[in-house]
This record gives sequence, C-alpha cells and structure tokens, in this order.
Amino acid sequence: MTMIKNITNVKGITCWGAHTGVKSMRRDLAIIFSDVPASAAATFTQNKVVAEPIKVSQKNVKDGKAQAIVINSGNANACTGEQGRQGAEAMVDIMAHELNIKRELVLVASTGLIGEPFPTEDIVKGIKENVKKLTNKSHAGSFVANAILTTDTFAKEGYINFSINDKEINMAGVAKGSGMIHPNMGTMLSFIVTDTAIAPRLLDKIVKECVEKSFNMITVDGDTSTNDMVAVLANGLAKNKEITSEKDEGYEEFVKHLQDMMIHLAKQIVSDGEGASKFIQYEVVNAPDEVTARTLVRKISDSNLVKTAMFGRDPNWGRIICAAGNAGLPFDYQSVDLYIGSEEEQVQVLNNGQPAEFDKNYLKKLLRDSHVFIKLDLKNGTANGMGWGADLTTDYVLFNSVYTT
Amino acid sequence: MTMIKNITNVKGITCWGAHTGVKSMRRDLAIIFSDVPASAAATFTQNKVVAEPIKVSQKNVKDGKAQAIVINSGNANACTGEQGRQGAEAMVDIMAHELNIKRELVLVASTGLIGEPFPTEDIVKGIKENVKKLTNKSHAGSFVANAILTTDTFAKEGYINFSINDKEINMAGVAKGSGMIHPNMGTMLSFIVTDTAIAPRLLDKIVKECVEKSFNMITVDGDTSTNDMVAVLANGLAKNKEITSEKDEGYEEFVKHLQDMMIHLAKQIVSDGEGASKFIQYEVVNAPDEVTARTLVRKISDSNLVKTAMFGRDPNWGRIICAAGNAGLPFDYQSVDLYIGSEEEQVQVLNNGQPAEFDKNYLKKLLRDSHVFIKLDLKNGTANGMGWGADLTTDYVLFNSVYTT
Repeated sequence: MTMIKNITNVKGITCWGAHTGVKSMRRDLAIIFSDVPASAAATFTQNKVVAEPIKVSQKNVKDGKAQAIVINSGNANACTGEQGRQGAEAMVDIMAHELNIKRELVLVASTGLIGEPFPTEDIVKGIKENVKKLTNKSHAGSFVANAILTTDTFAKEGYINFSINDKEINMAGVAKGSGMIHPNMGTMLSFIVTDTAIAPRLLDKIVKECVEKSFNMITVDGDTSTNDMVAVLANGLAKNKEITSEKDEGYEEFVKHLQDMMIHLAKQIVSDGEGASKFIQYEVVNAPDEVTARTLVRKISDSNLVKTAMFGRDPNWGRIICAAGNAGLPFDYQSVDLYIGSEEEQVQVLNNGQPAEFDKNYLKKLLRDSHVFIKLDLKNGTANGMGWGADLTTDYVLFNSVYTT
Repeated sequence: MTMIKNITNVKGITCWGAHTGVKSMRRDLAIIFSDVPASAAATFTQNKVVAEPIKVSQKNVKDGKAQAIVINSGNANACTGEQGRQGAEAMVDIMAHELNIKRELVLVASTGLIGEPFPTEDIVKGIKENVKKLTNKSHAGSFVANAILTTDTFAKEGYINFSINDKEINMAGVAKGSGMIHPNMGTMLSFIVTDTAIAPRLLDKIVKECVEKSFNMITVDGDTSTNDMVAVLANGLAKNKEITSEKDEGYEEFVKHLQDMMIHLAKQIVSDGEGASKFIQYEVVNAPDEVTARTLVRKISDSNLVKTAMFGRDPNWGRIICAAGNAGLPFDYQSVDLYIGSEEEQVQVLNNGQPAEFDKNYLKKLLRDSHVFIKLDLKNGTANGMGWGADLTTDYVLFNSVYTT
C-alpha cells in the first residue's frame, strides 16, 4: 500500500470533514486548522454578486494572517441578504470561540445552491461538534477534500515536498470545481497549506500571480461563480529562514512549487467537467507579452464554436483564428502558425496564416484522444500563455437544461 | 394577392440576384444599384481578422458616398491573403467599369466559407453578365434577399414608407444571419436603401447609433464573424429637404424608422438560428445609463447557462443574476426585480433581490412558448436596453460538431 500524503502532512496542520445534514448523505463541512497563526493570502470571485462568506473572508484576510478555514457545502450562502450575512459571521464566531483564536484569523467559504435560506443553526452546531475531532491523521485530509465537493465526481488533492535552507518543506492542497451538470453550484474553491516561512505581503503577491496562470486559465463555462475563492496559508513551522523578498533563498523554489500545485489542482477541475468528453490544452507562444498570450488563450478556449469543433474531432482552424481575432487585441493572422493534435503529436494546420498541407484523416484520428492540444504560434515575441478547458457537448446542454431550480 | 414591397420600391434603386456557380444550386451574387450617387454609411466587424471585401468597403465608404453594392455568397474571401485582396478589388473594378461609375462608389461584401481560395474569375464573369439585368421589378428584390444567404433558412426583408415635408419616403432592407448549423459561415450582413435626402455625416452618426441598438444586441454565438457589415444608402430621390442636422424636420422620423427597420431585420436573424428552439427577448430597465443597460443585456444573453436554462424551460433566476454580476459593472442584486415569462405574460421571480412567491409550475408552462421574455429592473435610473437571442440546444452542439471543415 502506498501512503497518499495530503494536507495532514504539512507541519502543524490538523483538519476534519463531517456530515451535518445540509447535504443528504455526504460530508458537507470541512475545517482546516494551523497550530500557529499563518501568513495568509487569498483571491476571490470577480463577480459583482458576491456571496456572504466571501465578504467576511475578504475582511479577515486583509491583515495577511489566518489560522483556521471553515467551509460548508450544499448551500452557497449567496443572494441570501442579511440572514446570510449573519450566518457567515456566526460560522466565524463559533470557530473563534471553540478554537480560542481571534475572529480575524478565521476564513470562511461556502458552495452549493444560490438563493436558498442559509441553515445557520445546523452548521454552527456541526462546527461545535466537529472542531473537537481535528487531527493530523491522513484520513482527515481525505474527509476535507470530499466535504467541499458538490457535484464533483472525484476529490481533487495535491501534495509536494521540497527543501529550502536544507529544511524540508511540505505543501498540500484541495480543490473543488464545477461539475458541469449543475454549474450554478459550480463554485471553484481551493485551499493550499504549507509550512514554509514567508512574509504575508510577498505571499499575497505570489498567490495573485500564480492564480492568474492556473485557476484563471481554466474554462468550463464562461461564468464566474459568486463564491470562488483560493486561499493559501503558510505557517512557518518548517523553520526555513523567512522568505521576505524576491532575492531571498527559496523564493524561486517556493513560487515554482506553488505554481505547479495550482496548475495540478486546476487541471483536475477541468477533468471533472461531467458533460465534457475532452480535456483541451491551449497554448499561445511567442507573443509580445504574457497578458496578450493569456487573453488569446482565454478567448479561444471560451468559444462555443471551438469547443463544439473539438467535440466533433474537427480540426476547424477557421473557428480558432476567428475567436483569436475577437479578443480585442492586435492580431495578424497572416503571420501565425497553428498546430492541432493529441498530447503526443500535433499537426501543423496553418503556416503564416495559409492552410498547411496535412493529412486530414490522420489528424481527425489524433483528435479521438481524450486529451487534445491546440498551439498558436504568433511569431511576434517571446512570451507564452497556457490554459485548459473542456469541450462543449450535447450532454452539457442536456444536463444543464434538465436541472431545474 | 398582396404585393410585397421591397428594395425595388425605393426610388432610383434597381437590383439583381443571380447564380454564378460558387454555390451549387442557389443564387450567390447580388447587385444593388442607385441611379444617382447616394449618401452612404456602414459599420463593420470588430474582429481583428478582417475579410478582404471589408477592407475595400471601409476604404470606399469613407467619403460618405456610394452608388452600388455587390455581394457574393458561398466564399467569405477571408484568410485568403493577397489572392483574396485582388479578388475583392476585381469585383469593384468590374462593377465600376460596367456601370460606368467611379471605383470609390462601389461597396463589396462576401459571405461563405473562410480560408478557401477566392473564385475571382467566376464572380467577375457573373457580375459582367448580371449587371445588364438590373431592374426595379419586384422579383429582383427577392432575388437579392435570397442571393446573400448561406445557411439561412429564409430570406430576411423589410419595407416601410413614411413622409417628410409631405414627400413620400421609402426605406427597405435585406439581411442575412448565422444559420446556427454552420456558424463559421455565419456572417451577419444587412443592406438598407432609402430615397431620403440626408447629409452623409449625419447619416453616419445615425447608422452607428441604430446598429448599436439593433444588430449589436442580438446573439446567436458569442463570436463575431470576419465579414460582418451593415450598409445604408440614402439617394435623396424622394426630394425631401435634405436633413443636415438633428434639428431639421424629418430627423426624428428618419431615425425612428431606420431603428425600427434594423430591429425588424435583426430579430429575423435571431429567429433563423436553426439549432435554436426559442426566441428570447432580454430587457434591462431603469438602469443608470444606456451603456450599462445594453452591457447587462449582452452579458445575460451570452451566458450558456442562461441559454440552456431557457431551452429547459427553467426559470433559473440564479443564473441570470450571476451572469449580470459578471458584466464587470457595478451591480447590486439586492435592489433588483426580475420577471420571466412569455410574450403575453411575465411573472415576477425576484423582488429586491429576494425570491418572490410565484407558481413555479405555471411559470414553467409559460416557458413552453417559443418566445420567452426576461426583464431585469435595476430601479436605479431611467435608461433601458433591449436585446434578442436564441437558446442553447442539443441540436446546436450536434450541428456544430458534425459539420466538418
């Protein structure tokens, strides 16, 4: 038996995941706790309709410190007004009280149905009961990974270790995504914990940059949920010399591994698009700058026409070029090369904007693969961007139309 | 028999639509001619990948005058490079030569497959032959309306008359849209002719404003084609006193009717979304300004989740509010009212952001109608916006995935 490592392998981290009754049969409450206050940074949904727990967490993470995270699933606590606000605050209150820490050290997140009255009483009672069970035993990490799910079909986890100043560093995370069956419950949440010692302000900058290249580069639907949140806690118990600037030893190592962790979790979210039949990787290379590269990746991966073409195994380059042309950026199709194919082999379909000669039947065979790759070479710089998405299928439409409020 | 009036009923307008062989069985070339040079204004695709005929028309309409329009269907002349550029110029050359008018008075448009070599020779030959057939007989108008179609299932036409300074004014137009089966042939084109006397600069301003509230407010796919173009010619043969400013008699009359004509044609385009099962009208009312209202309409009508909900007859207000929250504008859901229903009757589902009490089964019955209405009341101003779209159906995905390049 191989022991799977998870968030419980990060020094000073204990956790628990439990069933409180908001969801009918499955775990619906997760608690993550650090023995000591940790440097903390988070990014939140850009939707103007913001769930109540998001507002509370935005306030509490401002000082760059946090010690505990509580997450409920089954009810999003969004569009719930004053009743919901009180519910989110009550979650923080009971956490602070039971753990004997300051309110400002608690982050809170919710995922589930929008616009349902928030079951404050059940959840507060659940927190009170389960906070006693916090443990660093491995199965508790799995409980957390499962308790934050809604329509996801599998738990999304990651663990990595490396060293800084000869100190062993642990980093682990969990995530949930948008099962495409019920995308209005399709909140994206991710919580990453590490025992790295790093200054809060620097962590905040790194987290924002890494999210930009990972969670912000995946697309299942075009819509951003009211509850999206990514939070990182670094509690310093690895005892490396605190990283306080970009020049410090361990800085690049830390950024690289946090970036890898986020991409690892983000790709799992895309893989769990249930209506989806394909995982598509989009690359834009040799762009004038990274923002241009990422904007083009997002525009192409958001196009319904590109997504349906991939569902149909159709190397329809016209749709890809047309989507890129709609990004609102300077784009000269006459200088680009385009490659389409599987993970193992891509075929050039455009050469300087002109159709390249290729065996269409062979390429269509490559596109039968469950992993499809699209690479657009702008030949106009050195910056690259990468993103991931699902195809658009008849199942997606069917699932989303039969799901009723 | 009721005589249907069309572009041939505009004074001084002759036209013809013919089959040149680019499409296998159907008419694929349209020519519209005005006896005298007309005030002309046009709007073009915002896609950065611009078809060759668009570039030529942009140049030729700059002086505010035009006398002839030539349109071919079956080949978009997009992503065709130098060969395509020469093809578009050749169409203008032969038109100018045969009609004995200046090159700068000819506008040109194409619609059809992207990236195919342009069949310049066939089309030039077709123009030469068919320019002799220009006539103001009614069936020629129908020929034009049909010749510009690609995957559209019906011709889109409009005619209206009114008076300015006791002069009878005629206005008529044709349009084509995106049959959803082959949306990479889904160019939106519209050509409107009128015998109104109006100054070119004022016409240009009016056309841009009217397009903003009509053709720019419809959505079938999110993508804008490389070939989109709307052009208006006003040749002055109605002999009204030329309208040169917003204070002139007839100005408001003209704007109102041009606006109505464009909305009439735009709605027909939406109705012809073949994968679509429903025509949806979106209204955002009592917004702080018109741009806000229209931006929210566009964001809601572009949402795959809203479109699939309507396909499923599901009054899923959470998806509508979530889409509005993603528009990147200030949006306070706690003050909005939301209504969903059929053309005849809408039911209030949100009251100040709180779920209103309503009979869900009754509302689901209303949503069986082929015309669905969604109205969002911001209660935060006096500006309104309106738009039209189709639902997202399993047929849409199927058609778009089986269509191969």
